[in-house]
Amino acid sequence: MIEEKYKQLVEIALASVEGIKRTGVQVLELRDRYLKTLMPLKGNTNHVGIMYAGSLFTIGELTGGLVHLNSFDISKFFPIVKEINIRFVRPVLTDVTLEFEMPAEEAARIQAEAEAKGKADYALDLEIKDAQDQIAATVHGLWQIRKIPENMANPFQKG
Amino acid sequence: MIEEKYKQLVEIALASVEGIKRTGVQVLELRDRYLKTLMPLKGNTNHVGIMYAGSLFTIGELTGGLVHLNSFDISKFFPIVKEINIRFVRPVLTDVTLEFEMPAEEAARIQAEAEAKGKADYALDLEIKDAQDQIAATVHGLWQIRKIPENMANPFQKG
Repeated sequence: MIEEKYKQLVEIALASVEGIKRTGVQVLELRDRYLKTLMPLKGNTNHVGIMYAGSLFTIGELTGGLVHLNSFDISKFFPIVKEINIRFVRPVLTDVTLEFEMPAEEAARIQAEAEAKGKADYALDLEIKDAQDQIAATVHGLWQIRKIPENMANPFQKG
Repeated sequence: MIEEKYKQLVEIALASVEGIKRTGVQVLELRDRYLKTLMPLKGNTNHVGIMYAGSLFTIGELTGGLVHLNSFDISKFFPIVKEINIRFVRPVLTDVTLEFEMPAEEAARIQAEAEAKGKADYALDLEIKDAQDQIAATVHGLWQIRKIPENMANPFQKG
């Protein structure tokens, strides 16, 4: 379930990036600092019928980006992705899911750093799992939150 | 220009993976051990109008995979992707291109190793460039070629 206060933000995040929307990726659950996403196999297979590497990348990159929405103050900060490493552990023949929870102290620490310095990196280690709960791919990504300049439009700001 | 003998293979490679086809990525040039690809900005923007990280991943991953087609004996070997690292260097506001040439000696060395051991890794460093010829993203990827088992269907085998 997506917590009510996040519903509109999640819709915008998925609908505003064609390359994400096209995959049919779903946000199954999202609440403060926790989320679970799903990439369907259907529509995301490669020439030999297993999940396309790019669709595994998308669920990893999207999940890391969504962490911004439910962990930081989006009225003050925006996220960028700096670097992503993805390791393909086994061929994927099912839908895959990705669960992530950001510890409250970690979110507070990152945000305090961005408050003080104007920006702060956050690194995430994510495990993409198949329907048998086996690790399909691992993602090590580096994102950054930055203070929103006063003259910048914020795509996730309401109203 | 795509060399005649590769035209059908390239068509199959692009058409058989929905996640690739959906991006509109193009193979501009492909001949023995050389290729150039293009990812259009149109259809591949994110929520702030720059190229989506996943579309940059796709041009990198596709290009590394196509190296298999024009560098190795596809009647004997098939490729898998093991790991990809992508670093996003600057926001992209144009189409991007990616050029790669595999040295003949390197292709021969990798193939000889696969012939002897049944498989061989190949690592590629790729630079994705924008229309101003600036580096947009860098990709370090690890692929592997493997001998096709006698009982395995080869999706790239003609006839």
